[in-house]
Amino acid sequence: MERSLRARPAVRDALEPKAGRDTVRRHNLSLVLRAVRESGEITRAGVSARVGLTRAAISSLVEQLLDGGFLSESGKSFSGQAGRPGTVLKVARTGLAGLGVEINVDYVAVCVVDLAGTDRVRLVEYLDNRGAPPGRVLRRAAHIAARAMSSAAEQELSPAGAALALPGLVSAGTVRQAPNLGWTRTAAEEPFAAALAALRPGLPVLPVRSENEANLAALAELWFGGLGGIRTFLQLTGEIGIGGALVLNGELLRGAHGFAGEIGHVSAVPDGPGCRCGGRGCLELYAGQSALLRAARIDDPNGATAVAELERRARAGDRPALAGLETAGVMLGRVLSGAVNLFDPAAVVLGGIYRPLAPWLIPPAAAVLGTGVVSGLWPASGSRLRASSPAADAARGAAALVVQDVLGDPLAYTARAAAG
Amino acid sequence: MERSLRARPAVRDALEPKAGRDTVRRHNLSLVLRAVRESGEITRAGVSARVGLTRAAISSLVEQLLDGGFLSESGKSFSGQAGRPGTVLKVARTGLAGLGVEINVDYVAVCVVDLAGTDRVRLVEYLDNRGAPPGRVLRRAAHIAARAMSSAAEQELSPAGAALALPGLVSAGTVRQAPNLGWTRTAAEEPFAAALAALRPGLPVLPVRSENEANLAALAELWFGGLGGIRTFLQLTGEIGIGGALVLNGELLRGAHGFAGEIGHVSAVPDGPGCRCGGRGCLELYAGQSALLRAARIDDPNGATAVAELERRARAGDRPALAGLETAGVMLGRVLSGAVNLFDPAAVVLGGIYRPLAPWLIPPAAAVLGTGVVSGLWPASGSRLRASSPAADAARGAAALVVQDVLGDPLAYTARAAAG
Repeated sequence: MERSLRARPAVRDALEPKAGRDTVRRHNLSLVLRAVRESGEITRAGVSARVGLTRAAISSLVEQLLDGGFLSESGKSFSGQAGRPGTVLKVARTGLAGLGVEINVDYVAVCVVDLAGTDRVRLVEYLDNRGAPPGRVLRRAAHIAARAMSSAAEQELSPAGAALALPGLVSAGTVRQAPNLGWTRTAAEEPFAAALAALRPGLPVLPVRSENEANLAALAELWFGGLGGIRTFLQLTGEIGIGGALVLNGELLRGAHGFAGEIGHVSAVPDGPGCRCGGRGCLELYAGQSALLRAARIDDPNGATAVAELERRARAGDRPALAGLETAGVMLGRVLSGAVNLFDPAAVVLGGIYRPLAPWLIPPAAAVLGTGVVSGLWPASGSRLRASSPAADAARGAAALVVQDVLGDPLAYTARAAAG
Repeated sequence: MERSLRARPAVRDALEPKAGRDTVRRHNLSLVLRAVRESGEITRAGVSARVGLTRAAISSLVEQLLDGGFLSESGKSFSGQAGRPGTVLKVARTGLAGLGVEINVDYVAVCVVDLAGTDRVRLVEYLDNRGAPPGRVLRRAAHIAARAMSSAAEQELSPAGAALALPGLVSAGTVRQAPNLGWTRTAAEEPFAAALAALRPGLPVLPVRSENEANLAALAELWFGGLGGIRTFLQLTGEIGIGGALVLNGELLRGAHGFAGEIGHVSAVPDGPGCRCGGRGCLELYAGQSALLRAARIDDPNGATAVAELERRARAGDRPALAGLETAGVMLGRVLSGAVNLFDPAAVVLGGIYRPLAPWLIPPAAAVLGTGVVSGLWPASGSRLRASSPAADAARGAAALVVQDVLGDPLAYTARAAAG
């Protein structure tokens, strides 16, 4: 029964209040800031009703958030509401922001998101990172990030931190393994932070965190995508490799070591050809970007234009392209059937290159799911297998993760917001 | 960012305390009771140090728990501790208990567990429930449960409720599907409760809940097994079917509809023979009890003696038995490789009939895991694939679930404990 004991925090008896007026205020600042962010526009009275604190408490908290530059206020009033008309609060569109940097096999995407969650700057460079020394790739990414920060500064936005989205097993600032980049036990956060600092002499060093890119793409789908109320889902991100992320009740499922979701190396054909990972018949061999392009006989080294060409050919009815997509769809269906039986998600989202290719991948995958999932768990309608939202990608998810840190404890960022 | 807002409860400002002195006391009663249960024996001072409430608060809470019959007190004192020696508190060994009833394909197991988590009564009847009308099976189970309750009463134990462990998809008191029992959309809780009430005229009707048996076996492993500090694991329970349960940080992962863990119908051979479930080459067709017995040419209809015979033959080097176990081990390895890539558990536990058969299943399964799991995630040592503890089974997990309810809110059971 230790489970329950550890899971619940001790609610201290009123005999012993003490501990943490500061903590409570910090928490409440975050509560108010997030309530305003969720509402878009809201009066102080609205915030009070929403978070269940008194008007007096709200006014004091709002004042501090306005001073800190987290909120802005406009004279607009609501006549339809009870009580005297108030001014309207919004999350500030200038000041602190989040910087997201996705380093993938054939591109680097940088994104700056403001506190409201809006994409404000986006810079993508297509380049071949396969086999390049990690240090060079990270310096290049820092260069792109610095350029995006210059654009952000012109919009009076100043990132509070950066998050790196990386296509591999990421843990404690290090890429344990990113086979498609050719990285093994590679430190990522520190070299990136140092390279970025070198490009911005005299400016404060940005805190940098890192995360698996599929996980960040799934968070972006959760926060910005079209899932409606769905908060338990499985997301596949097709790239050179295939990333997977499991979201359970709105939280990333990371597993015991933080490496959950390695769906690209689940076997689709147990006695199939050997994969670099040591396994046999891995999904990636049939449904990864290289396999799809090879089947369609496209050998453009630029991934983005190659995938666009694949989509064009599929639309035109090109047989090799369609055959490759059919095979990939079947293999996706096989592996997803197992994953759905195990994890029971409310939806499966196909992102990355699978988004434009979904019209050809979903029908064969859905047919396999229809027979492969224990009956009743997966209605034949197939509406639960869907393409990701175009608004949701790993770079935006990374930037939003930084914004989430700020929203979660604005006090920790107050000096920077006021300075910025 | 709604995620965070919903995830955290509102910490109300000290300007507005009110709400929930009762709730706090209820919670603290549970906190103290669980602290005593975890410690085995502890003084009031020890409880105070452990849960972080004042001595005065603890004394008042302990008094109420002693009055309610949840705790007992002995004169034994600790001279080694600071302060005056106190009497020692323990969880009561009489009074409220949990009743667990596992209804499986070829047996019914009933277990009564006291508040300390100790198995106090166990009654198992081997019978063939396949194809029998559900009503008759549930009445039979109630009969066995009533007999176990009589034994419990002789030990002055009175179940606070019952939990049914069922081999299928269980949701809201109904078995949606239990293919190996032949049940579809079958109400279980209510008919069982009614049958039990009919056997105990004049006594209060026992509240009954139900849960998938593999989930309960996994909870039993977590609470009573030999996992040490491991709290994220995957458990397979081999029976006629194969149950699967995922435990994440000590909590069952239920998925979007409560049906997660259906590992028996994950395909091990994508183009293999058809399974009753509609899929192809499901794990159950190679590693279920029927497949293992068929391969060994054992046709004893009694599952328990048949599995014992299989174990005997394997030990004696019988070729058909060993070949069947080898195949089952390989297929388990295939499906587990996918599950480990997806879920990243710290251990995989093999329970049910796999426990005695583990010496023959684990080596081939571990070999497949060694190449099928993305490198680094699954050390070749293989110590992370292990047999379940003999102390952990679904019936005990079911009984412990009821005990957990009592420990979680003792006040709700106070009258019954005192009366019992």
